[in-house]
Amino acid sequence: MSKPISFARGAPSLDIVDVEGLRAAADRALRNDPAGATAYGTSVGYLPLREWIAERHDVAPERVLVTNGSMQADAFLFDALVRPGDTVVVERPTYDRTLLSLRQRGADVRMVQLEPDGIDVAALARVLAAGAKPRLAHIIPNFQNPAGYTLSLDKRRALLALAADHGFVVFEDDPYEALRFEGEPVARMVALDPERVVYASSFSKTVCPGVRVGYLVGPEELIGQIAKLATGAYISPNMLAQAIVNEFCRSGALERSIETVKAALRERSRALAQALGEHLPQARFVAPQGGYFMWLELPRETDVAAMAQRAAQLGVQFVKGSDFMLEGGESSLRLAYSGVTVEEIERGVRLLAQAYREVSERAGAAA
Amino acid sequence: MSKPISFARGAPSLDIVDVEGLRAAADRALRNDPAGATAYGTSVGYLPLREWIAERHDVAPERVLVTNGSMQADAFLFDALVRPGDTVVVERPTYDRTLLSLRQRGADVRMVQLEPDGIDVAALARVLAAGAKPRLAHIIPNFQNPAGYTLSLDKRRALLALAADHGFVVFEDDPYEALRFEGEPVARMVALDPERVVYASSFSKTVCPGVRVGYLVGPEELIGQIAKLATGAYISPNMLAQAIVNEFCRSGALERSIETVKAALRERSRALAQALGEHLPQARFVAPQGGYFMWLELPRETDVAAMAQRAAQLGVQFVKGSDFMLEGGESSLRLAYSGVTVEEIERGVRLLAQAYREVSERAGAAA
Repeated sequence: MSKPISFARGAPSLDIVDVEGLRAAADRALRNDPAGATAYGTSVGYLPLREWIAERHDVAPERVLVTNGSMQADAFLFDALVRPGDTVVVERPTYDRTLLSLRQRGADVRMVQLEPDGIDVAALARVLAAGAKPRLAHIIPNFQNPAGYTLSLDKRRALLALAADHGFVVFEDDPYEALRFEGEPVARMVALDPERVVYASSFSKTVCPGVRVGYLVGPEELIGQIAKLATGAYISPNMLAQAIVNEFCRSGALERSIETVKAALRERSRALAQALGEHLPQARFVAPQGGYFMWLELPRETDVAAMAQRAAQLGVQFVKGSDFMLEGGESSLRLAYSGVTVEEIERGVRLLAQAYREVSERAGAAA
Repeated sequence: MSKPISFARGAPSLDIVDVEGLRAAADRALRNDPAGATAYGTSVGYLPLREWIAERHDVAPERVLVTNGSMQADAFLFDALVRPGDTVVVERPTYDRTLLSLRQRGADVRMVQLEPDGIDVAALARVLAAGAKPRLAHIIPNFQNPAGYTLSLDKRRALLALAADHGFVVFEDDPYEALRFEGEPVARMVALDPERVVYASSFSKTVCPGVRVGYLVGPEELIGQIAKLATGAYISPNMLAQAIVNEFCRSGALERSIETVKAALRERSRALAQALGEHLPQARFVAPQGGYFMWLELPRETDVAAMAQRAAQLGVQFVKGSDFMLEGGESSLRLAYSGVTVEEIERGVRLLAQAYREVSERAGAAA
């Protein structure tokens, strides 16, 4: 059997990583600032990169902390804010690692339904009116993982109003923002309410995952508190990798890389939508305007767990929808199109459709 | 006033970092393995580097986990093994960040006196006989931080025998091992008892701190457990930096870098010993055979806190001995000679001696 086609992993294929640009950036980082790139540095990150991020967000550098990937940023934020028993609102579905991380900390996780224009703010208002007192709401506003949906501006404003009324922090987890290949950008919540929102993003999707560089933007006091946690965890994050990313960003390579990535994602998402329309018309989905993911809802009776097993036998991998929820989601699934070629997409969808048919027929025969 | 002379920071000066070698290694890493250097990788670290470390230790790769610096390795090990209330034995004095990290986890920290040939094993035996049931003993066997002392082979064996009898894990925290510039190496405890010892080391002192690459060697089951913690913390450590370190190690640059570092440390430690003999004969110390640090004991009545203040005014920094203990140490201090030139050492020691005289005279006048 040939190499499996993976719709499972939210990671870029190597052909859309600017390896030459990274080599040049590494060379410049070690020529231009050998002391900064090789020394311990500080727990807030490599200072020139911190400044570059601060300028992009139009905030003071004291509001920025650069970490070893944005997962680590999430972990620090949860360590700073979430105590066992604290209520945390998340989207339903949401990123499985976030769910796991919150549950490991003993948080009382409340999932609120995600709609194609973002979290159901009216449902959240009802949860709050019923007495929930969340410490934090975790929101992936753009091209959400796993659904690919984007939170509308109206809903961003409504969410911030709820946060202000009920005194909770909004965690705007935004690694895919730069990967919009259609439509218009929506204002960041951290720009709309800088004292109530903590923003996280990453260079994993715009430079490459292996550099493990993420960051937080938030209120100065909280960032200072997290800097202390970071000192205790690792003294300082990776100065060499951050110095390389800094050179990559400041040289214009970042913009070129983002264009390459967006062009590939646009092509792949269209190929995926078209192949699904042709071969698996039973699947409902919203065509994404950016990011890595598409969410499929299959007819209610579909056993996606069985379908995943059969698909794996046929050489195609994806993640079951139920992995992104505390309960339910048994007839949904996530397809990542970031790491597959157009040819693989077409072949993969045909195999997915075969797995769907076989599992449905088996279920029909058993009924 | 000119730039302060820092005997405070355990970090190398830039002149002993092989920046050219790092540039070449970065270039090769991205040419030879662009996929591995830029992708997420796995939480056990960049596989070729993991293999290189395993070969050096003559163990299976499954016993090795490569982390973002050895502080992070320590943190994972403590997370895996230490629960609030657990007894942990440490040396007195010991690395201040280890003390802090253990106390933050609610450990019951028992300090056992460090002697010039390592931890007082007889005193530890008495603590154990009196009923202490440690989970872990944290030991820095070579050129200890802060004291610069090395644990003798006899004491290593005695310590392992106590660990076997009383069922505790020995955490062999060994970042300075490669920096021996005099005398003969002593066998690693992890080689003497691979099932009872977890070993940590780092490339911070042999490549540079900014790469933030450390590692653990230990029993396969424990390493597997820590790999899961690492996945939850950051998915994977820095693949780009680890790929660069891998190239640096495999090209022979590591051996050359270690020779450069050792030559500088030998020269600096001798200059320090000589200057102290000349200008501050009141200080007792053991001339180190490797590593970064020298421990000074001043006459019992010396107020080292006051001396540190006065020295800072004169432009010289060091760390007070009391920072490395839970109590006591008021007449001792740590000098790091890794980041200072011979000229700075001579000038710095003269200023230290001046601070000592002034503080002693003030105390004498007050008495």
